Amino acid sequence: MNIDMIDAAAGRLAGKARKTPLLSSPFLDEIAGRRVLVKSECLQHTGSFKFRGGWAAVSLLDPDTRAKGVIAFSSGNHAQGVAYAAQQHGVPSVIIMPKDAPQLKIDNTRALGAEVVLYDRETEDRREIGAKMSEERGLTLIKPFDDPVVIAGQGTIGLEIAEQAGEMGIEEADVLVPCGGGGMTSGIALALEARAPKMTVRPCEPEGFDDAKRSLLSGKIEYNAHTTGSICDAIMTPSVGDITFPILQRLCGAGIVVSDGECLNAMAQAFLRLKIVIEPGGAAALAAALSHASELTSETVIVVASGGNVDPDMYVRALQGLSV
Amino acid sequence: MNIDMIDAAAGRLAGKARKTPLLSSPFLDEIAGRRVLVKSECLQHTGSFKFRGGWAAVSLLDPDTRAKGVIAFSSGNHAQGVAYAAQQHGVPSVIIMPKDAPQLKIDNTRALGAEVVLYDRETEDRREIGAKMSEERGLTLIKPFDDPVVIAGQGTIGLEIAEQAGEMGIEEADVLVPCGGGGMTSGIALALEARAPKMTVRPCEPEGFDDAKRSLLSGKIEYNAHTTGSICDAIMTPSVGDITFPILQRLCGAGIVVSDGECLNAMAQAFLRLKIVIEPGGAAALAAALSHASELTSETVIVVASGGNVDPDMYVRALQGLSV
Repeated sequence: MNIDMIDAAAGRLAGKARKTPLLSSPFLDEIAGRRVLVKSECLQHTGSFKFRGGWAAVSLLDPDTRAKGVIAFSSGNHAQGVAYAAQQHGVPSVIIMPKDAPQLKIDNTRALGAEVVLYDRETEDRREIGAKMSEERGLTLIKPFDDPVVIAGQGTIGLEIAEQAGEMGIEEADVLVPCGGGGMTSGIALALEARAPKMTVRPCEPEGFDDAKRSLLSGKIEYNAHTTGSICDAIMTPSVGDITFPILQRLCGAGIVVSDGECLNAMAQAFLRLKIVIEPGGAAALAAALSHASELTSETVIVVASGGNVDPDMYVRALQGLSV
Repeated sequence: MNIDMIDAAAGRLAGKARKTPLLSSPFLDEIAGRRVLVKSECLQHTGSFKFRGGWAAVSLLDPDTRAKGVIAFSSGNHAQGVAYAAQQHGVPSVIIMPKDAPQLKIDNTRALGAEVVLYDRETEDRREIGAKMSEERGLTLIKPFDDPVVIAGQGTIGLEIAEQAGEMGIEEADVLVPCGGGGMTSGIALALEARAPKMTVRPCEPEGFDDAKRSLLSGKIEYNAHTTGSICDAIMTPSVGDITFPILQRLCGAGIVVSDGECLNAMAQAFLRLKIVIEPGGAAALAAALSHASELTSETVIVVASGGNVDPDMYVRALQGLSV
């Protein structure tokens, strides 16, 4: 994995992915006690950064292989990203999703042309199901994070952060990234290593799913005890990957762990101050910026708001915490 | 008023206002039966397009005049735009707001450094109050819409629409704009006359506040019977202005009138499909695109989502209409 792969992915994504804005508000700066810049990937196609990795992977397949279709397993955002990338390429997609994924993500994935197969997180192994269907139909598996091409696609966020912050004269920053399997986190870290080497990526995780933080401390891949139990469905991954972990280990600063309540508050602040909709997992990094100031060191914090696919009920819960 | 004034405003706004994204979703295209592009001015500084006009006006004052401070009257978005523009210039601002403006807008205006004076919409004349305070303190009145410099500032949205749509190969479109006093509508119409002459601006108004539509039909400035009674607080203006009306008359297509329910639905669709927060008045144009397809003629409709400063309670009301 190197910067050339990320630049190549950026070339394939040009005119296809949105260059999302780097938003800010004096009100958020005041809460965080420093300058806060929010890379708003919730405004990406399909409502999350996952479209980047999906497009990067589907666009690189040779045409005959691509024509047979692709398959993915995902709690929802990768699902939509791959489904939309496949639809835009005119090829079929099969998406394997947990039964307890937000209904909105399941509905959207179907509406983007995918065949959706539901499984039980506690009793079934999605990797097994995916491998079996891939073989039967000649589908190409698009992994959610532990794949160099997908990592390169997500890494294009890092290229844009370096460019957009650079235009503002910012070279040093803590860059907070919601971390599940580490695809986006490692991709951004690789991009910034090359283009903004004074920035430090910090993985952000929900309580009970802090495997990345623990893995960085212990020096080996650690696992989470549970697979459910946070509202941050997008980043409740069992562990980081074999490809992502060494990159995280080489390039990232310490992980930051946030509570569900801190994520709900960050969602509400994004509503009030930035006018963007973010989902619980997508708010983990903003939650870290707003509620864990003592763990940050730079004068500027850049936060990735990674997705906005949240059911209305959960969003109402976030807004009810506001006292306006 | 001409395009040179808008270009000059764009020069002063460069690096100060955000170039807001033109968002889209296949789900919205399906509802509208045509391509829908959403100019997301809710992502502008202070959460609405009004920052453009505020900055355009404050930045053009001579330094001695500016140092004495500025004054504005507004239901909230112009208030915040002027307050923030003044704060960024390091000069004082006084903002005269109706007592029934959303609490969020009042609080934000104060937090942006303004002195807020509240008045009663039904019994007091805000113009009178404004003129008196301007005189007493040597403040310069920044009008909300009927001022060539403010119109030019809002018109920079039109320059960006022409450029962003042009990059997508789009020359013809209905351009739907929420219309109160007509500052933004006339500014965009002037910009498009010069830069995208095949586009037609259509003012969008709430039921009971359709003075622009009626004025275009009768050929003279018509007034609304009431000053309250819609959830679209941002565009409940008594009439269009003496400067804005001739521009609207020369350049705009027929007005479109939307119901409060259609605006709430548009807010919910923007939440679901675009991940942007829009307020009721800011949703009037999107409501027209989604619910008044039969009144549109072009294959592409460009919608201005003009602001996102909505109280959480009203937003929850919009989301409760969703069946997900």
